[in-house]
Amino acid sequence: MKAEIIIIGDEIVSGGKRDLNGWYASNRLISCGIGVRNITVVGDNYESVLNALSQAVKRSDFIIVTGGLGPTEDDLTTEAASRALKRPLFLDRNVLDRLKKKMDKSGIVSSDSLEKLAWLPEGAKMLDPNGEVCGYYFYEGDRCLYFLPGVPEQMRRLMERRVLPDMLRIYKPASIPFQRTLKLYGLSETYISDTVKGLKDELEGVVFGFYPSFPENHLTVTTTGKGEKDIEGKLGLAEEKIRNILGAYIFTSEDKSMEEVVGELMEKNRMTISIAESCTGGLLGHRLTSIPGSSEYFERGVIVYSNKSKMEILGVKQRTLDNYGAVSEQAAREMAEGIRRTSNTDLGLAVTGIAGPSGGTEEKPVGTVFLGLSVNGNTYSGGYSFEGSRGKVKSNSSEMALDWVRRHINGYPFIPGI
Amino acid sequence: MKAEIIIIGDEIVSGGKRDLNGWYASNRLISCGIGVRNITVVGDNYESVLNALSQAVKRSDFIIVTGGLGPTEDDLTTEAASRALKRPLFLDRNVLDRLKKKMDKSGIVSSDSLEKLAWLPEGAKMLDPNGEVCGYYFYEGDRCLYFLPGVPEQMRRLMERRVLPDMLRIYKPASIPFQRTLKLYGLSETYISDTVKGLKDELEGVVFGFYPSFPENHLTVTTTGKGEKDIEGKLGLAEEKIRNILGAYIFTSEDKSMEEVVGELMEKNRMTISIAESCTGGLLGHRLTSIPGSSEYFERGVIVYSNKSKMEILGVKQRTLDNYGAVSEQAAREMAEGIRRTSNTDLGLAVTGIAGPSGGTEEKPVGTVFLGLSVNGNTYSGGYSFEGSRGKVKSNSSEMALDWVRRHINGYPFIPGI
Repeated sequence: MKAEIIIIGDEIVSGGKRDLNGWYASNRLISCGIGVRNITVVGDNYESVLNALSQAVKRSDFIIVTGGLGPTEDDLTTEAASRALKRPLFLDRNVLDRLKKKMDKSGIVSSDSLEKLAWLPEGAKMLDPNGEVCGYYFYEGDRCLYFLPGVPEQMRRLMERRVLPDMLRIYKPASIPFQRTLKLYGLSETYISDTVKGLKDELEGVVFGFYPSFPENHLTVTTTGKGEKDIEGKLGLAEEKIRNILGAYIFTSEDKSMEEVVGELMEKNRMTISIAESCTGGLLGHRLTSIPGSSEYFERGVIVYSNKSKMEILGVKQRTLDNYGAVSEQAAREMAEGIRRTSNTDLGLAVTGIAGPSGGTEEKPVGTVFLGLSVNGNTYSGGYSFEGSRGKVKSNSSEMALDWVRRHINGYPFIPGI
Repeated sequence: MKAEIIIIGDEIVSGGKRDLNGWYASNRLISCGIGVRNITVVGDNYESVLNALSQAVKRSDFIIVTGGLGPTEDDLTTEAASRALKRPLFLDRNVLDRLKKKMDKSGIVSSDSLEKLAWLPEGAKMLDPNGEVCGYYFYEGDRCLYFLPGVPEQMRRLMERRVLPDMLRIYKPASIPFQRTLKLYGLSETYISDTVKGLKDELEGVVFGFYPSFPENHLTVTTTGKGEKDIEGKLGLAEEKIRNILGAYIFTSEDKSMEEVVGELMEKNRMTISIAESCTGGLLGHRLTSIPGSSEYFERGVIVYSNKSKMEILGVKQRTLDNYGAVSEQAAREMAEGIRRTSNTDLGLAVTGIAGPSGGTEEKPVGTVFLGLSVNGNTYSGGYSFEGSRGKVKSNSSEMALDWVRRHINGYPFIPGI
């Protein structure tokens, strides 16, 4: 059984407003085990609405239409439905009475065009017979069509109270699909997809999806089953098999962000951290402190953009800057050691690089970034070459820095760089 | 002439991710004077893609397809296009060579499935022949089809650089609607909308649109005209009338970000700045340093999360913290003065507050934020009460801090707070 969604509105098809209803409806349908075939957005245009409806009843079991139910002239959903499905309009006297009472009560100047709301396609029944929200449904053979208002709040209320329960009553899904998302950092989409392809034969009934989410890659594992135990078993096995190969690159299978994962590791291990950022310019601190409760482990950060600040706050040596430059493994080491020493934390993490678009040289092009991680008695350092815009270099650098902490605490080797 | 947009992706049709591309494409097409007939979202499903394409070529002049161009197995847009439009696939050797070179260079483990990206439907030409972004186009009789990647950033780049100029070359619209966006901070949407409503009679042929973009409000002014002079005149008059009333709240009418505006003011006035952040945790620094060339005016920042770091780095007095707390106007003053003194910049900007969700008290609830701005011989300070999540408090605090710099340099009073 398949559902389909039709969104009607000039403001949506013209990009003036972003659609909220299609996104919401498909999300809710899928989570109820009902697949969505397509979402069509059309303007308040008679022919387009008619065409979309005619297509939909040919191929989908449930059809959700939103928008164009209002009293103004450009609301033509009902008329188009009447024509597309050959259901003459009738005047629902109950609806009319209710509308009139409501208008009198609210003191809003009543108008003839209100009557329009009470004309429905033959066989249609109101979804909210005693309420204030317009919207109706009817069956067309085996197909069921729901017409909902375009106002997101009203649309959602009818979806939750009437449409979804109604659908689940008609269509008792044998098995609701379950999904788990593995988030990876440090591998290309192609590499992950090839690896997963090799597992297909061993994992029957499991479907994989790939969602690049720069700089990460998200891999969804979806399956259906007869009970929670069966489903958990299948998902667990899939995750295990993927982890056996890509283990260290998977930073979560619980829909957490990298900073959340790192924060939990810090808390669990009762560790504290301080950071020294140059090219990331505060992004690393922003990410770490976006997690509620991060003040438990995040002690301080410094954004040492100038050489002067690197020397003054962190004690980076003038000689180091002269001999190797501010963007160098040596500078990253001294920054990491400097911030750890001055703030007296367990970890000192440093990033220095060239975010671009200018500032690159032949030897150190834009995207060259060095990291340093100082821990008790030891300092790790290394460099990477990132591609893309200033924003991408900052994003990738902060992600890699967080990944260093994750890998250090978990005992994984760092991702190799330049 | 009509355009149509097809969005391909399981993650979109299933509501897992909100569509950005359809919204963006239709918005841009409309602003270029090209009407959009419909937007269709389908999953990574061979039949659905085929069906959507077959429909589209029957009725629309320009067809934009996004998504499903990647190297993985579920990317089947190209294959479906080949079949729907009877254009056998061919191997574009140039594309293949380029892809191989890129992979070698970046050190990412290469794989066979990459070759898939180099197979195109007969007659197709790459949109970015020397670049790194996949995407191609071909003509089908009078119709033109553009196939773009689903990654929003890449999609937008190709739209702006290739697709829109190409369309405007083919279809010369009689009158292109022109739009100017005024970005405001510090007023509610209702307040702005009521103000603008009052101007409607004076501004014929001008249409206003409201786009909240937290924490900012964006107001679009759209008009059509017979020539650039006519249009510029109308838009200029509208902007002038709005500025007369809301002047100080409008931070740009040139589609710049707040940090860009502040950066330009700093550069123009040859000023330098250093910052001390507590509750924003690096976000303020991240925003300032997201602007290329910001190292010219941004000297350093400190993220003083702990009281210890506030005292050690900035010289905030123990007595101040004991008597007023770290979230206080007094602490904000000392932080601003401390960072300006230690880094020897023209401006010292400080933020301290309670981002939540915990840490609030009756006297200082979550969202209480104090700012300090130290300039030569003077320190300004003040407090605000922001609403919403941790993320929203951080975002609003950083915006207000940037706005203080903008207003200080421009000679406007600060937005009043608590």
